Amino acid sequence: MRQSQLFTKTQKFAPKDEQAKNAQLLIRAGYIHKEMAGAYSLLPLGQRSVEKIKQIVREEMNALGANELIMTGLQRRDLWDRTGRWDDDAVDVWFKSSLKNGREVGFGWSHEEPIGDMMQSHINSFRDLPVYVYQFQTKLRNELRAKSGIMRGREFVMKDMYSFSANAAQHDAFYNACIDAYKRVFDRLGIGEDTFVTFADGGAFTAFSHEFQTVCEAGEDVIYINRERGIAINEEVLTEETLTELNVTRDELEEVRTAETGNIFNFGTEKAESIGLSFTDENGKSIPVHMGSYGIGITRLLGVLVEKLADEEGIVLPENVAPYKVHLIDIEAADQAEDIYLALLEKGMDVMWDDRDLRPGAKFADSDLIGIPWRIVVSKRSLEAGGVEITSRRTKESEIVSKDDAISKMLAL
Amino acid sequence: MRQSQLFTKTQKFAPKDEQAKNAQLLIRAGYIHKEMAGAYSLLPLGQRSVEKIKQIVREEMNALGANELIMTGLQRRDLWDRTGRWDDDAVDVWFKSSLKNGREVGFGWSHEEPIGDMMQSHINSFRDLPVYVYQFQTKLRNELRAKSGIMRGREFVMKDMYSFSANAAQHDAFYNACIDAYKRVFDRLGIGEDTFVTFADGGAFTAFSHEFQTVCEAGEDVIYINRERGIAINEEVLTEETLTELNVTRDELEEVRTAETGNIFNFGTEKAESIGLSFTDENGKSIPVHMGSYGIGITRLLGVLVEKLADEEGIVLPENVAPYKVHLIDIEAADQAEDIYLALLEKGMDVMWDDRDLRPGAKFADSDLIGIPWRIVVSKRSLEAGGVEITSRRTKESEIVSKDDAISKMLAL
Repeated sequence: MRQSQLFTKTQKFAPKDEQAKNAQLLIRAGYIHKEMAGAYSLLPLGQRSVEKIKQIVREEMNALGANELIMTGLQRRDLWDRTGRWDDDAVDVWFKSSLKNGREVGFGWSHEEPIGDMMQSHINSFRDLPVYVYQFQTKLRNELRAKSGIMRGREFVMKDMYSFSANAAQHDAFYNACIDAYKRVFDRLGIGEDTFVTFADGGAFTAFSHEFQTVCEAGEDVIYINRERGIAINEEVLTEETLTELNVTRDELEEVRTAETGNIFNFGTEKAESIGLSFTDENGKSIPVHMGSYGIGITRLLGVLVEKLADEEGIVLPENVAPYKVHLIDIEAADQAEDIYLALLEKGMDVMWDDRDLRPGAKFADSDLIGIPWRIVVSKRSLEAGGVEITSRRTKESEIVSKDDAISKMLAL
Repeated sequence: MRQSQLFTKTQKFAPKDEQAKNAQLLIRAGYIHKEMAGAYSLLPLGQRSVEKIKQIVREEMNALGANELIMTGLQRRDLWDRTGRWDDDAVDVWFKSSLKNGREVGFGWSHEEPIGDMMQSHINSFRDLPVYVYQFQTKLRNELRAKSGIMRGREFVMKDMYSFSANAAQHDAFYNACIDAYKRVFDRLGIGEDTFVTFADGGAFTAFSHEFQTVCEAGEDVIYINRERGIAINEEVLTEETLTELNVTRDELEEVRTAETGNIFNFGTEKAESIGLSFTDENGKSIPVHMGSYGIGITRLLGVLVEKLADEEGIVLPENVAPYKVHLIDIEAADQAEDIYLALLEKGMDVMWDDRDLRPGAKFADSDLIGIPWRIVVSKRSLEAGGVEITSRRTKESEIVSKDDAISKMLAL
């Protein structure tokens, strides 16, 4: 990408009503645009980063044998009446409207009910199970407050996965495989060590659910962890009973502030019973399906990464999340830069070349704000010193290498 | 993909209330699921086909220099008040709801207003123009009736692009480049010859807009075409004046039924004036931006392709739209099939292997219904005859070739 072709401009200031650091930086750098509190459009840089997070998640979900699909946002009232979740007293984040004929519709804040209902067309026999499906869905939730930038939106992208199993053993096997897959996702995003599989409230169906909580000062949750033993407990279930069950004392636990980046949930057979989803077992008997749900907050993750990694100068993103891996900047050395640009492009490298006619200081400030992991500067001075200057956005370490070495080094990333 | 891992089942019948051929076939084949009239979830096969259509469109829009982004579905009332399009009398397809604080929000049926408003943060000077942006957006439109399957939905995927230009000449250059890009899209989808750039109502801003109309019996439009001269006129503007202007007589025109698969629209400067989007020209003068909008109905296109190409046995899709290029079917020859499957997978071929334990007739019927372009059958009989049987779904021509030749042939597609 030639930066002259990118329409977004960096901004000196974020909107005055924007309190969250993640949104302030992402708006200023041109990743997102604030439409209203809790609703942000993804501009080209943001759209690329979100797609990269999605792709990492997609690969790991596919490796689990899950099928990707996309459910509708529009939802029928009758599906949610069946499970008692249409009423605003039961679910307080609904956006609702109605068709021209007066029939009420809701806008998807979650999809268990419609996916469970849809599965009635595809699950009949024990031979059809297990089934795992997932989607990247734009969820709408009518949150009372939305002050955390893209970490808690009224409109946000979520990966939600659902499992349909014949029995508890089949369910548990997938549930555990999913925990491992989620760990791989967070490892690949560079926050594996800071993300804890956390015991949390299990709701009506089970004693506990599992949340993936990532240490983050801007997070909304508080959890208690023991890093050595890998134990993490959401404060909501920090009771004597839980401590006893997990064989840990309060003194052995450290309090940390976190953001919930994923969660997995076992519905047992209750959800399927209320939806009416059953199958015929080996003996011809009709049995309700075991269901589970497995979420990852995709846009939230971008917010968490910004909150955790940003520095004084701006955004810092991991290589596999940043919109581009390389930011090529030339200072009156367009021909030399173009050679490098074309060489990298030809090899399929994600490179953005700041080919704009701007003074060096403005280019560097923009580059720091946008936070692409590797910067290559080509200038008269660098060429005299033997080539180009490569700088790591994160460590700020830089070195002068030859043009060819710079290209090889970037391709080896 | 091993078909045993695909959760969808083909269905003998579509829902009784489904009248449209495209939806009947797509539901029966497991591409889509009907949530309500005009709202269909995309199941794995449908999701793959839609992604393929998107990718073709994406490549052509990127080649125009357009930037991909994603706007929010949630929209602020004030943006549409400004242009007089909030009221249901002005726009009769709004879904509306409200935030907890009572503020009204709409759900995006189009995005000119929010995109134009957002551009105020990025367009200041003539140096910032032109700008082209596009998105693949799930639009919501509260249609009174929705009986055309995925050809006219209450929820559907659209590619909408917007241009922002400094003057009429800059606008026209892009407008014309976009016509060419759209022609390439329709050529790549295999419907180039049946798709006509059609003079249509220009609304308030210009004499004509241009629609891309694809000949399709299930379409909602009627146009008048002269194939030799490449003239096409929507019946809504078939007047003496239009005929005179285009230098054609009614007798030289053929009436055909069509589906509108794309449209491009010139707003002049009026839209930007009502939004309040202007720039500073070379002389320091504030000038309203020239805007244009450019749509392609992504999910509609899948419907049109099904309507046009399906035969008695089921869906027929072009190679670059079908969810898989190759449908490998084994009849008690799993080892041989696995060799072919792995060889094709290794080369990155989109192949689905029907590895299910079903009788041959059921596998063939499913394969015909799903409509993957190339079928490779491995059976005891084919092996005795010298290899495998390759059949074109479209022409039904088949031949026996060696396993190696079959692999080479598929990879050469």
